[in-house]
Amino acid sequence: MSERYDIAIVGSGPAGLSAALNAKIRKKSFIIFGNDDLSGKLVKAHEINNYLGFYGMSGKAIKEEFEKHIKAMDIRITNERVNNIYAMGSYYALMVNDKMYEATSVILATGIQYGKLFPGEERLLGKGVGYCATCDAPLYKDKVVTIIADSKNEEEEANFISTIASKVYYIPTYKDEVEVDSAIEVVKDTPVEIVGEDKVEKLVLKNREIETDGLFILRDSISPGQLVPGLKIQDNHVEVDRSMKTNLKGCFAAGDIVGKPYQYIKSAGEGNIAALSAVSYVDALKKEAAK
Amino acid sequence: MSERYDIAIVGSGPAGLSAALNAKIRKKSFIIFGNDDLSGKLVKAHEINNYLGFYGMSGKAIKEEFEKHIKAMDIRITNERVNNIYAMGSYYALMVNDKMYEATSVILATGIQYGKLFPGEERLLGKGVGYCATCDAPLYKDKVVTIIADSKNEEEEANFISTIASKVYYIPTYKDEVEVDSAIEVVKDTPVEIVGEDKVEKLVLKNREIETDGLFILRDSISPGQLVPGLKIQDNHVEVDRSMKTNLKGCFAAGDIVGKPYQYIKSAGEGNIAALSAVSYVDALKKEAAK
Repeated sequence: MSERYDIAIVGSGPAGLSAALNAKIRKKSFIIFGNDDLSGKLVKAHEINNYLGFYGMSGKAIKEEFEKHIKAMDIRITNERVNNIYAMGSYYALMVNDKMYEATSVILATGIQYGKLFPGEERLLGKGVGYCATCDAPLYKDKVVTIIADSKNEEEEANFISTIASKVYYIPTYKDEVEVDSAIEVVKDTPVEIVGEDKVEKLVLKNREIETDGLFILRDSISPGQLVPGLKIQDNHVEVDRSMKTNLKGCFAAGDIVGKPYQYIKSAGEGNIAALSAVSYVDALKKEAAK
Repeated sequence: MSERYDIAIVGSGPAGLSAALNAKIRKKSFIIFGNDDLSGKLVKAHEINNYLGFYGMSGKAIKEEFEKHIKAMDIRITNERVNNIYAMGSYYALMVNDKMYEATSVILATGIQYGKLFPGEERLLGKGVGYCATCDAPLYKDKVVTIIADSKNEEEEANFISTIASKVYYIPTYKDEVEVDSAIEVVKDTPVEIVGEDKVEKLVLKNREIETDGLFILRDSISPGQLVPGLKIQDNHVEVDRSMKTNLKGCFAAGDIVGKPYQYIKSAGEGNIAALSAVSYVDALKKEAAK
């Protein structure tokens, strides 16, 4: 059986990192999912002057200070993408491609999803449209799979699925050089619409159409309602109270995901609150169990 | 007529400073009241490890980083104590001893009041008990005045009132050396209760009693309900929504004053939100006025 963490933190931006510091200080077992850039938004920021304590620094320089801080406290980021989180009653199951993690409480700090859903995406979700190619790979043995990928990190997933599917189309929406297996057809075009009656039939792009059995949309962040079924969403943001509690017991959220203003120090402050709320929640459960 | 600021920020801890950065960046006219220590609580902190970006630093060292930041942005702190804030309809009047400041909006960031009210304090407030000796000085010409002071900063106020009153007792609750005019009687004792029927009659201390006409309690922070009449208080904290709005239009609050957890980065995050909410409020009023 896998270890059950006290707290799983999803996201490595200021909210997630701040939550991790507090989980560490409060001596809870935790895992934090994210990536080496910590926050894609942060590292791209030209200059940030309203994070109290840092003046005239680039987002990249501030990111380096954050990195030093978590390293000094021996916090390591798990570089994996959480595809789904299920409330299991007394704990949460976090699905990460072919693995599953368990945690008593969860802090959602995945930021906001930039960009809209494609026309047809929501209607055909689960009917050929999915967000995790690796998870659904067995369904597409010898079939045609199309992948829309928001970052270079997804190339590995495309390579994996191409060992199973009969044909893989790969549509990168990022600017880095694409390096995928030669069996994969890279299509540099802009997706417009997903078409299909009861299941996906084709992807319409600006300049061509692709007939496909499966379509995976691999975005940097999954919308919170899709990430955690049952989570209450209000105006595209996770609804929280002032202690960063969501409508799901043991599930907290912090940062851009809970709403404007989209500011680094606001996110860090909320991460702190969310962590302390999660600590209280975990402690109360343990006390209850010890009775 | 005095200048009317867009925003008055009361308090120079992390919440107030963070609010000031954002008011400055958004090009609003503002004034920030506080003191040279910025935050008495911060400078006393031995080591702070959960302010994301700073590791292993003392509160004093972090305070110096905050100071550098606000100096770099040319923000100056007005070293005066706000005694009362009145909602005047379209603006707020901030009473500072013998002066008055005006601002379209207010951000309360005074922290929490450490310590409880003295028995009898609330009941006799305005009946001989007050929080601003300078303001009420004319009432105590040739009378006996007692001052309970939480910090050395109040000595000047005691000196001033002693030029008017017939007798001044001065009870310091701080540890620094007391340096007041020789006409003032310094009483090193612990206040226990304020006694009086319809008005203050005497102050009971642990080892003696003092008959007095007026009693001024000069604390580092005044409780928010006393500071801003009409402000909605919940469990000893100012009630705010997620945009840091209080029940009074144009009045916002951030930091420890709005509730737990009492954490620096939580306060800084809330200061950021409060400032942006105040900016929106001021902009909306200006737009309305221009119609």
